[in-house]
Amino acid sequence: MSDHQFDIGIIGCGPAGLAAAVNAKNKNRDIILLGAEICSPPLHKAPTISNYLGFPSISGEELRQSFLGHAAMLGIDIIKKKADNVFPDEDGYMIISQGEMIRAKTVIICTGIPYRHTLKNESDFLGKGLGYCATCDGPLYRGKDVAIVGYNEEAEPEAEYLSEICRKVYYLPLYKKDPTVNPKVEVIRERPLAVEGDQAVRILKTSKTQLPVDGVFIVGAETSPERLVPGLELTEHYIKVNRNMETNLPGIFAAGDCTGPPYQLSKSTGEGQVAGLNATKLVLKMKS
Amino acid sequence: MSDHQFDIGIIGCGPAGLAAAVNAKNKNRDIILLGAEICSPPLHKAPTISNYLGFPSISGEELRQSFLGHAAMLGIDIIKKKADNVFPDEDGYMIISQGEMIRAKTVIICTGIPYRHTLKNESDFLGKGLGYCATCDGPLYRGKDVAIVGYNEEAEPEAEYLSEICRKVYYLPLYKKDPTVNPKVEVIRERPLAVEGDQAVRILKTSKTQLPVDGVFIVGAETSPERLVPGLELTEHYIKVNRNMETNLPGIFAAGDCTGPPYQLSKSTGEGQVAGLNATKLVLKMKS
Repeated sequence: MSDHQFDIGIIGCGPAGLAAAVNAKNKNRDIILLGAEICSPPLHKAPTISNYLGFPSISGEELRQSFLGHAAMLGIDIIKKKADNVFPDEDGYMIISQGEMIRAKTVIICTGIPYRHTLKNESDFLGKGLGYCATCDGPLYRGKDVAIVGYNEEAEPEAEYLSEICRKVYYLPLYKKDPTVNPKVEVIRERPLAVEGDQAVRILKTSKTQLPVDGVFIVGAETSPERLVPGLELTEHYIKVNRNMETNLPGIFAAGDCTGPPYQLSKSTGEGQVAGLNATKLVLKMKS
Repeated sequence: MSDHQFDIGIIGCGPAGLAAAVNAKNKNRDIILLGAEICSPPLHKAPTISNYLGFPSISGEELRQSFLGHAAMLGIDIIKKKADNVFPDEDGYMIISQGEMIRAKTVIICTGIPYRHTLKNESDFLGKGLGYCATCDGPLYRGKDVAIVGYNEEAEPEAEYLSEICRKVYYLPLYKKDPTVNPKVEVIRERPLAVEGDQAVRILKTSKTQLPVDGVFIVGAETSPERLVPGLELTEHYIKVNRNMETNLPGIFAAGDCTGPPYQLSKSTGEGQVAGLNATKLVLKMKS
C-alpha cells in the first residue's frame, strides 16, 4: 500500500466519471480514475445518440471515443481496476481495489445503473452462501460445491480460482461468448432462476435443473452502491444525493446513472461536472 | 391571442433551454422556445471552453454554433421575443411576451443568472416609481419625467415609446454602442447609482449629477425569476428546484444558471435535459 493520498478518487469511467475527472483535472486536482475496459458499454453499443447538445447525430462509439480522447488530452489515466469497497480512513477514504488500497481525501461514485437482485430469494441468502466476490469469500468453500453466475468475462478468473479450492464448480455464463475456463469448471448454459435452501444455500435452480451447491456467487453485475460503500444512504436502490451531488457521507459524492433516472448522457456529464467541482472545493477547504 | 396550447413553453435559449428543447422535440412534443438574439452571450464571448465533455478545446462561439445547429437540425425555431410574465391558465400557463399571450401546458424557465439589484434603494422603490417594464407601466407616467437605465439595445424601443407620452425621457445606456433613439430622448452617459425619494421616486442619482424624475425603469437586465413568475419559490435569489427540476409550482420547471451555481455548460445542458424529459412525462400524463 502506498502512502500517497489522492485529492479525489473517482470510481467509474462512464460519462459521469469522465466529466468529474475532466473538471477536477482542469482545477489541478490530483485524481485517480478507476474504471473497466469499455468505460461505457451502453454508449459503446448505441447506434445513434441524438440528444447530446452540440453533436446532433453521432454514433455512441464515436461519442465514447470523443469522451475518452478529452480525458486523454488532459493526461488522465484510466486505471483498469474494479473498486470493491470504500471505507473511511483517518482523513478521507480508503478504496479497496482488487487487494490494493488507494487513499483519497474525497470519493466520487459513478458506477452506473445499480445492480438489482435477479435471482429469487437472492437477498434472503446474502451472507448465507450467497455472495458477490468469489476471491473474497472463496476460502469458506474449500472442498465444497459452488456455482458462479457470470455476467461477463470478468467472472471467469473467479471461477478458475474457485476450481483450485472447491470440489465442484459450476459456471453459468450470462453472455454469448464461449467462456475460456479450465476443464475443472463445468460450464452450464442454463438461466439461473432461484436460490433455495434452509439456514444456508442448498440449491441453485435453473430453467432446466437444480444444482446442489453450498455457495452461489454472482459476479460482474453492475456494482451495487450499498455493497461498495457501507452506510451509504439510498432512495429506492439509487444513491441519495442533494443538488451539490453530495451523499449522506461527508466527502463522498455521486453522479450519473447511480443517482437515478433519466439514464441520459447530459444528465450524467452535468452531474459529473458538479460533483468534480464540489469535490475540488471541499479538497481546497481541507487544505486551508 | 391564439387558442393554440403548446405542450411546453421554454423561456431562454442558452444551453439549458436548447437542451430542454432538443430533448422534448426528440419526444415529439409541441414546443415553443423564446429567446434573445445571441442566446448565450457568455458562451459567445468565451475564448476557450475546456470542460464540455467530448469537445476538448473549442471556442465558445463554435460551441454556441454547434448548439444552435443541433436545434435547427431538429426544426426547432427560436422565437426572438422576451417573456415578460407567466401566469396560471385554466389548464396550464399563459406566457405574456411583448403583449402577445402564449399558452402552454408546462413551462421550463432557463433565463440564466438571475438579475440582482444594482441601484441603491432599488428594492425600496419597486412599485413606487421604479419598474422593469416601461411598456407595461408607461401610461402611469403620462406627462411626467422618467429615466430609463438600458442594459442593452432592447431598452431603446421602450425609451422611444415613453418619449411619446412622457414630458421628459432620460436614457442611460449601460452598453458601448451609441443608442439610436429619437431626439426627444436625452441620452446621458453617466453611471446610475441610486434611487432617492420619499413616498415615491424623486431622483435618479448618477456618478455626476441628480436627475429629477417621477419614474425609473431598468430594462434589459437578466430576468429576475420572481418578477417573471409570481409565486415562484427561491433559494437566495435562485429558483428552488428538486432533482427532477420541478419548482414549487406544478408544471413549471427550471434549468441552468437560474437554479444556481456552478455556472457551467454541462450542468446546464444536463438540467435542461432532465427538465425537458420530465415536462414531457407530465404532458403525456395530462393527456392520458
